Amino acid sequence: MKILICGLGLIGASLAKTLKKNTAHYVMGWNRTEAVMKKALAEGAVDEIGELSDLIPKADITIVNFYTEAIVPFVLEHRNEFKEGSIVTDSCGIKTKICRTLEKEDFPFYFIGAHPMAGREVSGYDNSLATLFDKASFICTPTNAPKAQVDTLTELAKEMGFARTVVTTPEHHDEMIAFTSQIAHVLACSYVLSPLAPQHPGFSAGSYRDVSRVARINGEMWSELFVANKEPLIREIDDLVSNLEKFRQGIEAEDFETLESLMAQANKIKEEIG
Amino acid sequence: MKILICGLGLIGASLAKTLKKNTAHYVMGWNRTEAVMKKALAEGAVDEIGELSDLIPKADITIVNFYTEAIVPFVLEHRNEFKEGSIVTDSCGIKTKICRTLEKEDFPFYFIGAHPMAGREVSGYDNSLATLFDKASFICTPTNAPKAQVDTLTELAKEMGFARTVVTTPEHHDEMIAFTSQIAHVLACSYVLSPLAPQHPGFSAGSYRDVSRVARINGEMWSELFVANKEPLIREIDDLVSNLEKFRQGIEAEDFETLESLMAQANKIKEEIG
Repeated sequence: MKILICGLGLIGASLAKTLKKNTAHYVMGWNRTEAVMKKALAEGAVDEIGELSDLIPKADITIVNFYTEAIVPFVLEHRNEFKEGSIVTDSCGIKTKICRTLEKEDFPFYFIGAHPMAGREVSGYDNSLATLFDKASFICTPTNAPKAQVDTLTELAKEMGFARTVVTTPEHHDEMIAFTSQIAHVLACSYVLSPLAPQHPGFSAGSYRDVSRVARINGEMWSELFVANKEPLIREIDDLVSNLEKFRQGIEAEDFETLESLMAQANKIKEEIG
Repeated sequence: MKILICGLGLIGASLAKTLKKNTAHYVMGWNRTEAVMKKALAEGAVDEIGELSDLIPKADITIVNFYTEAIVPFVLEHRNEFKEGSIVTDSCGIKTKICRTLEKEDFPFYFIGAHPMAGREVSGYDNSLATLFDKASFICTPTNAPKAQVDTLTELAKEMGFARTVVTTPEHHDEMIAFTSQIAHVLACSYVLSPLAPQHPGFSAGSYRDVSRVARINGEMWSELFVANKEPLIREIDDLVSNLEKFRQGIEAEDFETLESLMAQANKIKEEIG
């Protein structure tokens, strides 16, 4: 297959490098900043670069790797250029808004939202890795695409070396991502905003390091993701605050029974599920 | 020197193994469960085991590794047995309560509170490691001990291979530990108590893994530590909840400026301080 990667930042370029490393597909790349796509070509991360109007019509699969708000406009702008019967997908971290908007359109191609679940605290082409998805889940959230096209996409993910593929609804994806990813970033940031954070060296060990890691964050990208997934994320923040208040009350009242019960439940989840 | 380790759980036995590995000191060990100290002797983690009444009077340094509430009673109970001029220290994660109680006593030995800052999600002798403190800080919080004895203790920590030694007040220690360690555990537990946690496999990556790691926790030990450090920890919980509410309001109002500013501050702390 000919696969086009639009946007060669951290995720797009890591997808390109993974395709080149683990599959025999022909990889085309496009990036708004021309220097980046030239570098990708020179380094062998892609087989071909060029103008979008040349590349798009040739692609059997197009993977759009832009900020949340740019996905739908891009697909609509190029709706008449995508090859008939081809698959168009994306790698954005939220799915409901994108998939439920695009399913209303009558396209001659198949749009299938996807989320290759990996990231780094750093961004951009220069931080992309052919190993970024080695232990990752590939989640896709088809709405009106036929099973054959969904299978093509998940088979490709397996061929690329993703550890796991998951097919679910956009809504379930977004609810789960609010919990596993978004609230984790919100709480890591909220944590390091304590006035004591700058004094931590000498007083910190593994728990500070791990809990605060994802506070190294691209605020522009994550603001968009948070707002685009407002309802599920606010539910998670409210749940988290409610649990923190239970700890606070238990500590204030020296209520060992409540504290031990809360920690026993948390420990059980980590022991049984991880 | 002859060094006595009282309590051969995760921390005590790791201290014993580190002393044996990196120093030439003679290491004595005692544990309430006799089988554990016999195992430690058989495995070479200590040079000698026996009755407390035999071991205590021989020790130049005694390190008490018990739960928070057991430290002061143990030191008081054996106050007439410790060698004159010797150093008695502990490894408990909170310091004010212990150090400010014991400084009121007139001892013929020197009590210097200490906190070797490392841990694991698992506990007990069988999980102890000679490498547990390799990248760790050794914090000590002397109140009325002379400089010579404080130096003896910090020199020993350096000899053992601690990456860093810090001398501070019990109060500053406790405030910093409320931030770097205790609140990190409270928030990891509060996080995994979300009703969505059991469904996370397939939807989680590095952020879930890291932020939730320390929710694998010994609730009995941590309840004691939390309550013993009530005021600083409640301040940290309140700060955290207040920061979470700022995110919540920003998301609800789609206020990108506030969200980006919060994340820019958090990112700056991680980039500049770590």
